[in-house]
Amino acid sequence: MIEKLLLKLRARDSLSPVEETALREGIAEVRDYPADKTFVREGELLNFSTLLIEGLVCRYKDLSGGERQIAAIHVPGDFVDLHSFSLKRLDHSIMTLSPCKVGIVPHDRLTKITETLPHLTRLLWFSTNVDAALHREWELSLGRRDALSRTAHLFCELQARLEVVGMAEPDGYDLPLTQTELAECLGLTNVHVNRTLKVLRERGLVDFRGHRVTIQDREALEQVAEFNRAFLYLDRRVF
Amino acid sequence: MIEKLLLKLRARDSLSPVEETALREGIAEVRDYPADKTFVREGELLNFSTLLIEGLVCRYKDLSGGERQIAAIHVPGDFVDLHSFSLKRLDHSIMTLSPCKVGIVPHDRLTKITETLPHLTRLLWFSTNVDAALHREWELSLGRRDALSRTAHLFCELQARLEVVGMAEPDGYDLPLTQTELAECLGLTNVHVNRTLKVLRERGLVDFRGHRVTIQDREALEQVAEFNRAFLYLDRRVF
Repeated sequence: MIEKLLLKLRARDSLSPVEETALREGIAEVRDYPADKTFVREGELLNFSTLLIEGLVCRYKDLSGGERQIAAIHVPGDFVDLHSFSLKRLDHSIMTLSPCKVGIVPHDRLTKITETLPHLTRLLWFSTNVDAALHREWELSLGRRDALSRTAHLFCELQARLEVVGMAEPDGYDLPLTQTELAECLGLTNVHVNRTLKVLRERGLVDFRGHRVTIQDREALEQVAEFNRAFLYLDRRVF
Repeated sequence: MIEKLLLKLRARDSLSPVEETALREGIAEVRDYPADKTFVREGELLNFSTLLIEGLVCRYKDLSGGERQIAAIHVPGDFVDLHSFSLKRLDHSIMTLSPCKVGIVPHDRLTKITETLPHLTRLLWFSTNVDAALHREWELSLGRRDALSRTAHLFCELQARLEVVGMAEPDGYDLPLTQTELAECLGLTNVHVNRTLKVLRERGLVDFRGHRVTIQDREALEQVAEFNRAFLYLDRRVF
């Protein structure tokens, strides 16, 4: 259940058997959700956090006119709303992008971890801080990268994150995202995304079709994106 | 030194005398910086976090062409880079927007807090999660709000945050920000910001001139911004 989470955490630091057990025993229940299900609603009171075991989910915010901004995508092994442990209610909603399997981790079990396992606490705190780093990189994309660079950057980000949990090949990965959802990540219109994907494909950088991302030229793609994986904090550190 | 931090934390939960002392004793040194000084550089190894005592600072990321995106603004009482405690190196730089007084909090003192004071640890973790919530709201602004609504939203956000630490009057606050820096927050050009400020003023919503924000009609301004203060997490909670 927590193998992909362990892969992610161990890319950064060592975990003791006691810490691993605490994580395993954190999961009270496993749930299956269909695609396009909003399973956490903005503002509702939460007493558990959700670990993504299989599938893709996103966090999103809507304006009153229905315009949606996706604020982050989560891949298996991500502790999707670990931040709800301290926030209690979220400022955004969380929706599955594909059929998903999730682990429900009651907040009282997380409280117990903070009372007894300070190193693991710091590691979990860290992982919410990495989520914030992803938000900042998206702010840079939305505010300053042009449509081509912005779209290229998202494909690079997902390649790197999926590689850590063994879900990407060197030449690409599955991405069950519609063009509309992609537009909602990128702050663009559907038409603009469609045109941008065409340019990326014709320039031999990346091809996104049929829910599959095929990286045609990773180096050139990363250059167009100004992609620097430092913001993913994948290097080893001591907590 | 930490009075504004205490105001912010106590808006959310109670602090024991022991916790308050731990925070006071966390500050090893106080430094004064002039305006426009980048005092944390992207990628450098950090062994301390910075508490903002006086002045305004921002976190920013640059593209290679020099385009800058400000990812957040910090006001007195903010633990500006508390997230560097777990990240060790930052994916962005931090710069003063005005002359500032900051407290330097060595990471080993924060480690000690996580080893001995779990409730205070959860409160500090929470405050980094609120920083992430601000990032998400900016993603929504940058991706989906139009220039008018986006600019209005930033003025509403700062009014609410400065009120908590006693630095805003009901009709406005000082904001030592140039028009260029405002553009770098909003992902707009200087010209676009200038035009937008004019519209906001002429519509009787808000006037930003001479480093002073004057709220002309708060209700109407918040309506244009679709401002909902829930993302600031100012309500009481139990950690």
